[in-house]
Amino acid sequence: MSVLAVGTVAFDRIETPFGKRERALGGSAMYITMAARFMSDDVQLIAVVGNDFPNEYIEDMRSRGIDLSGLEIRKDELTFAWGGRYHYDLNQRDTIYTDLNVLSSFHPVISEGHKEPKVLCLGNLDPVVQNSVLDQVARPSIVICDTMNYWIEHTPDQLKKILPKVDCLVINDSEARELSGEPNLVVASRKIRDMGPQIVVVKKGEHGALMFAEGTFFTVPAYPLEDIQDPTGAGDAFMGGFAGYLSGCREINLDSLKSALVHGSAIASFTVEHFGPEGLYDLTKAEIEKRIKAFQLLTSIPSV
Amino acid sequence: MSVLAVGTVAFDRIETPFGKRERALGGSAMYITMAARFMSDDVQLIAVVGNDFPNEYIEDMRSRGIDLSGLEIRKDELTFAWGGRYHYDLNQRDTIYTDLNVLSSFHPVISEGHKEPKVLCLGNLDPVVQNSVLDQVARPSIVICDTMNYWIEHTPDQLKKILPKVDCLVINDSEARELSGEPNLVVASRKIRDMGPQIVVVKKGEHGALMFAEGTFFTVPAYPLEDIQDPTGAGDAFMGGFAGYLSGCREINLDSLKSALVHGSAIASFTVEHFGPEGLYDLTKAEIEKRIKAFQLLTSIPSV
Repeated sequence: MSVLAVGTVAFDRIETPFGKRERALGGSAMYITMAARFMSDDVQLIAVVGNDFPNEYIEDMRSRGIDLSGLEIRKDELTFAWGGRYHYDLNQRDTIYTDLNVLSSFHPVISEGHKEPKVLCLGNLDPVVQNSVLDQVARPSIVICDTMNYWIEHTPDQLKKILPKVDCLVINDSEARELSGEPNLVVASRKIRDMGPQIVVVKKGEHGALMFAEGTFFTVPAYPLEDIQDPTGAGDAFMGGFAGYLSGCREINLDSLKSALVHGSAIASFTVEHFGPEGLYDLTKAEIEKRIKAFQLLTSIPSV
Repeated sequence: MSVLAVGTVAFDRIETPFGKRERALGGSAMYITMAARFMSDDVQLIAVVGNDFPNEYIEDMRSRGIDLSGLEIRKDELTFAWGGRYHYDLNQRDTIYTDLNVLSSFHPVISEGHKEPKVLCLGNLDPVVQNSVLDQVARPSIVICDTMNYWIEHTPDQLKKILPKVDCLVINDSEARELSGEPNLVVASRKIRDMGPQIVVVKKGEHGALMFAEGTFFTVPAYPLEDIQDPTGAGDAFMGGFAGYLSGCREINLDSLKSALVHGSAIASFTVEHFGPEGLYDLTKAEIEKRIKAFQLLTSIPSV
């Protein structure tokens, strides 16, 4: 069953204490689809790039089964570019630059073949664009949405307009606090639920994720890794794994949401072990399954 | 089977956004024993107070089954006093003052009845004092030790002298990073294991705890609470619950350590719901068991 992801495809300039990449393949839609493809064989990407975007990157995605017919390529414009620097503890990053380029006039038109996704992922993007995509598709089984502090601060009204149409909001802890105005994440999750999304997933980086759904909480840790190279895209890959898993579920209920959360966390853990999306290129389903078993050992409380 | 805890008994001045307490009952040994008593009926406290310490507080502890025969009461001296202020997000606190008073000349002499504990808890204290207690008792089944940034910075040599004799070090994440010189907690845990303790428990406050034991990791989240009043003593109560649970185990192995971690987390969650040790006063075993079941729901991955 299909996963449709709208978001960015970008050039990322990444700097961590362990290395650097210039013009690496990046963007929320890229990470979401690159992760979702492990769980779904119908993964569709909606995004825009400029004429400077290399065929090699298109091939990196297409060869991995991602449907790129929704990738608009603009002549005479440049691809969205982001540059960031991570610090030694990897929990904080500085954005060095954000060149919107093609993104500043992105008005995606969804084609017929993409209008009935089972799972719709609204990757981090202007909520106006997210809203327009939502309005163009038939009601999916689940609408999953990400956002960031920029939209919370600059377009709160647009964001609050879309939230009632969202089933599941996936945001990080500082964003959950900012959106709700509440430091306590339990209270913050409740307040966000009051804004619309009945499922709230709070990503906490190295501390894992907290999900509030069906009146209860579920937590999953981050997989303890000794060698973290680059956290870029981990949150988007998490969302892709989460969405991809749900696309294969007959029913979306608490158990399938819990499993989806673990699948998302497992895929995110592979992402951070390498730079950019490199950790997702040659990853196998068997490796993901093995890590999910490790998650079970990591968290299962013995009945002593 | 017995738990012997050496540490502080103190007057705490606590200020959080939700209230204030002056001269509240506090101290690491108090919290450890107050928590361990739920799992063990032989809990012994080793600490020192001044003649200003009220009988009422002694009764608060004694009436809950804590053996206070190792509590030294010094004439003409004042009880150790600490004052701290928590901020709105409760993850950070400022120490307002630390009046060592009786603590500056604390040289505990362990009496015959306390020399064969099953579990020895070395609460946060000068490592020289911790070492002297360790040298006075017969080898326990497990030696559990806490420390803090002050001792890591000011008496690193004394600390490194005691670590090889410690089975389990329980410290918070920033202390683990400082002690090991490593930002990555997986690497930090390995480096700490090289210093002696084969079990490392890293407390992460609202993010739960990470345990490294028998070559593997285990995680437990903090219980998601809507109403946190005061984090004071949560780490010590955690250690007390952890130690108390282990004192009742025939064998200390990975499964019993995992269960101990969950018991410690459950008791810590009750601590933070009230000021000082108030949340532990009338707590029942049934309430703790109920919360442990909730922890299982919170973390158990369905086999979908």
